[in-house]
Amino acid sequence: MQRSEVDAFLRVDMGTGSVTKLPMPATWRLLGGRSLVARIALDEIPPLCEPLGAENRLLILNGLLAGTPLPCSGRLSVGGKSPLTGGIKEANSGGICGHMLARLGLRAIVVQGQPLDDRWYLLYVHPEGANLLPADELVGLSTSETAARLRERFGGRAGFLVIGPAGEMRMSSASVAGTDMEGRPSRFSARGGMGAVMGSKRLKAVVLEPARHNPPLADRERFMHAVRRFIEFIESTHQTAVVYPIYSTAAMVMVANSMGFLPTRGFSAGQFDQAETISGEALHDTILARGGEGKTTHACMPGCIIRCSNVWPDPTGREFISPLEYETIGLLGSNLGLGNLDEIARLNRLCNEIGLDTIEIGAAMGVAAQAGLVPFGDAEGFVRLLEEIQAGTPLGRILGNGAEFVGKAYGVLRVPAVKGQAMPAYDPRALKGTGVTFATCPQGADHTAGHTARANLDHLSPVGQVEASRAVQIAVAALDSLGLCLMTAPAVAGQWELLAELVSARFGVEWTAQEIVELGRHTIRLELEFNRRAGFTFADDRIPEWMTHEPLPPHGTVFDVPTEEMKKIYDFA
Amino acid sequence: MQRSEVDAFLRVDMGTGSVTKLPMPATWRLLGGRSLVARIALDEIPPLCEPLGAENRLLILNGLLAGTPLPCSGRLSVGGKSPLTGGIKEANSGGICGHMLARLGLRAIVVQGQPLDDRWYLLYVHPEGANLLPADELVGLSTSETAARLRERFGGRAGFLVIGPAGEMRMSSASVAGTDMEGRPSRFSARGGMGAVMGSKRLKAVVLEPARHNPPLADRERFMHAVRRFIEFIESTHQTAVVYPIYSTAAMVMVANSMGFLPTRGFSAGQFDQAETISGEALHDTILARGGEGKTTHACMPGCIIRCSNVWPDPTGREFISPLEYETIGLLGSNLGLGNLDEIARLNRLCNEIGLDTIEIGAAMGVAAQAGLVPFGDAEGFVRLLEEIQAGTPLGRILGNGAEFVGKAYGVLRVPAVKGQAMPAYDPRALKGTGVTFATCPQGADHTAGHTARANLDHLSPVGQVEASRAVQIAVAALDSLGLCLMTAPAVAGQWELLAELVSARFGVEWTAQEIVELGRHTIRLELEFNRRAGFTFADDRIPEWMTHEPLPPHGTVFDVPTEEMKKIYDFA
Repeated sequence: MQRSEVDAFLRVDMGTGSVTKLPMPATWRLLGGRSLVARIALDEIPPLCEPLGAENRLLILNGLLAGTPLPCSGRLSVGGKSPLTGGIKEANSGGICGHMLARLGLRAIVVQGQPLDDRWYLLYVHPEGANLLPADELVGLSTSETAARLRERFGGRAGFLVIGPAGEMRMSSASVAGTDMEGRPSRFSARGGMGAVMGSKRLKAVVLEPARHNPPLADRERFMHAVRRFIEFIESTHQTAVVYPIYSTAAMVMVANSMGFLPTRGFSAGQFDQAETISGEALHDTILARGGEGKTTHACMPGCIIRCSNVWPDPTGREFISPLEYETIGLLGSNLGLGNLDEIARLNRLCNEIGLDTIEIGAAMGVAAQAGLVPFGDAEGFVRLLEEIQAGTPLGRILGNGAEFVGKAYGVLRVPAVKGQAMPAYDPRALKGTGVTFATCPQGADHTAGHTARANLDHLSPVGQVEASRAVQIAVAALDSLGLCLMTAPAVAGQWELLAELVSARFGVEWTAQEIVELGRHTIRLELEFNRRAGFTFADDRIPEWMTHEPLPPHGTVFDVPTEEMKKIYDFA
Repeated sequence: MQRSEVDAFLRVDMGTGSVTKLPMPATWRLLGGRSLVARIALDEIPPLCEPLGAENRLLILNGLLAGTPLPCSGRLSVGGKSPLTGGIKEANSGGICGHMLARLGLRAIVVQGQPLDDRWYLLYVHPEGANLLPADELVGLSTSETAARLRERFGGRAGFLVIGPAGEMRMSSASVAGTDMEGRPSRFSARGGMGAVMGSKRLKAVVLEPARHNPPLADRERFMHAVRRFIEFIESTHQTAVVYPIYSTAAMVMVANSMGFLPTRGFSAGQFDQAETISGEALHDTILARGGEGKTTHACMPGCIIRCSNVWPDPTGREFISPLEYETIGLLGSNLGLGNLDEIARLNRLCNEIGLDTIEIGAAMGVAAQAGLVPFGDAEGFVRLLEEIQAGTPLGRILGNGAEFVGKAYGVLRVPAVKGQAMPAYDPRALKGTGVTFATCPQGADHTAGHTARANLDHLSPVGQVEASRAVQIAVAALDSLGLCLMTAPAVAGQWELLAELVSARFGVEWTAQEIVELGRHTIRLELEFNRRAGFTFADDRIPEWMTHEPLPPHGTVFDVPTEEMKKIYDFA
């Protein structure tokens, strides 16, 4: 069992202050990322527990292929029971921490309990072990201020996971920020309020020292051969080789606008009259025109060959934010009636500094606009709302707890959310397969759990959407378990034999395509079981009532995939 | 079927403005109050609907024995799908409207839809029919201002049901106020946010003209004979004949304090050092000492022979509020650390004027105090919080949506609520049978659904509590269906043959004791079925986590009735 030395996890008890390095149990070993979150949650988190209480766990872990030479394999998962949805949550992000964890010989960090005192802590993980250190001096700092202080103390080569004021205030839209290759705390495990869970543990930061303990490969030659094939797929796929590196994820803006599902002014329309000025093309051209520190393409993790990230400069060419992405442009841009990338970037940067999910907060501010708090299109007004969140005012508490909370506070029924989690930038009335994912997925409304924009079917028709959603839900659950970036999906989703080859060569097993698909299915099964034990039923698997009767311009469609059909989506489970 | 003339209901469609008088369907006819709410809800309300949307119904109805010469039989039920709990809700109250409805030949008013315009309406019900009238001039008025305007227009003999600003703002703790015998809008169908449902229909008021259309008695002599027996029970029971008329419901203060379940300072203790100054005895003695308009005993509905209500005078002897009751004293008094009846009365009056449930708001302010917004014991501070609600500020929106909402906004986990509804003034750790009711009852935490303080068992032990709760839950569900006041329970709960006699003589049927018990069971069954269809599971039937591990002074007990035992409470169903 030499492997246990390198296949270990940390158990951190905030109640006692103890930190223990333990071998991975056999039942956890061939799981990773989203599937490992679900497994540990079922094993250790009482499903009915209070998400912000001592019984919940904060799970920080990487995928099955983390730390290997495979490109795009270093996604970091942050999970537990979500304070936003009340169900299972896995929020993953790029950056360097997933790989760094692997190189420290770690597959997971399990944080349990809560401090008995009211002090704040950071978890310092280094090649020889790990321990909790006082961190009261970091309290109240923004994510970038926190990272800057940590960099002064631990050096520029360490990786950091931090929360901002939102996480400290245990707001349900609080995110966890991880550092990228240049040390920006810009890679957000954003969804489901995992920053609030981290805050409830009074854990302000996790520091990962660099290490060179590369995970062993059972068959290095076989692995590297598969890696070369993987790279060929990436480099020969238009989306991964051309579109993402040039236009970033923002490439989706004009696609969404032309297909009519771009959230606009509080999800009241699917096309935005200023879509072009916030498009991937505009983003690309403006970065080039401004010159200076801007970058149209950028890698968030070592070895990334897609480089869908970017660096957005201010008008003088100084770096303003990295990255500026589609979901943020959709929710903080068109959804708020804002047609200016600088304005969106400003809101984005404020969200990042406070440690907020831009999707949830964009949706929440869209609901606030419906309630009359700020007119659509008023960028300054939305900045003021974010400042309220930062200051923890009553209005800030309302907004910081997400779209559904704002709706309830102000009696606004037009809330775009499922299981309490706001929808990403795909209106389900004009992209119905993604709507099926939003409705059914155990994570709440989540495009990364399976979106269907590239599926070959009529996205306005209810026909075939359940099958389309099912297929992609299983596929991405597998990718998320391997630790692969979702941006690889256009190239390798479906190349199950190749992915099986990678797992086989890494772990010394003999997986086939079937085991990869089964990994995806197994993940969803585990998540469904956690949610069932947490009290979820069919009643939670629904697109909000108003989207079933309010037609979406320009196509005039409502969400009409039959409930009875959606109920069968997990019949494989 | 001449009976249909007098056994009718009104269907009010706010969307079309139509008001129709219809005969009671056969399946509704032998149901009333809580059971009729449940039946109509199952028949007409889509269980998954948005509580504040057009699909929900506002149900206003009376009990099976309303309008008859039986004392204490005129309770008014207001029901529908609750915006607070998301489940079935029946909130009943005294006052004159239950009987008045019966004398208008009506068993129920079913309000459906929502206006297409943004105007406000009142429903005017008179002996010849009913219609909707514009009511924009009443918007923003307090409950007493609204009643005063209606009195000017419709005269002092009409009955009024009104909402205050909280209902207009669709806050989840908004109540519906009905008038008492002197025209005070002081009888609150308080729980579960039915005021918000009324507000969501843009219905500011219901006006009931006096009528003399007494419900027919199938056998008058038999009925009157039973009435005499009923009166004998009331008059020969210590509780109903002596305790309530002298000390009001406030008699419970010293009982609760001595048994150690009086909610104190945010449910952190079960005994209050100033209990004596807010006791029923203090209330009684102060009213007498002040003289003037105060009354130690008062009837809220015609024919009441218990007269548990009171009129609380200010120090100069002028009427200040009527009534001042135990639940309010517990939640707005000891729970907030306030040991002064004038201060409690002031908060109570503000709640009434805004149209708020004093239980929910008292609990919400207790959570707010834990969050540090106002110190316990600071009456002025709590007045300011209520003014925030009245003004609809962001903080007011948080508070007005109830205890659980405040807890979520501020990350306070110590929230005394079940199914989103705050606990009445009985800490379940020291009165465990009532705790079982709170946990299991389809209505959410609700003492009127079955409290066990008078059951003959050790209230600190987990043993026997499920049986005790079950028995009393069935009993009160029957009383609530008959339209009988809960205050009659010490005298007549268990006198099932007598109650069966009354139903038989009223409706020309032959009921036995068994039918009355079955009426209670049937009510609960219908409610469970509605909630099941609305997505409720075992996960909703729980006392909050913190009460299972935080011992309650002075007895040091936690809530420890086994979940597995509680799961079997409705095995009769």
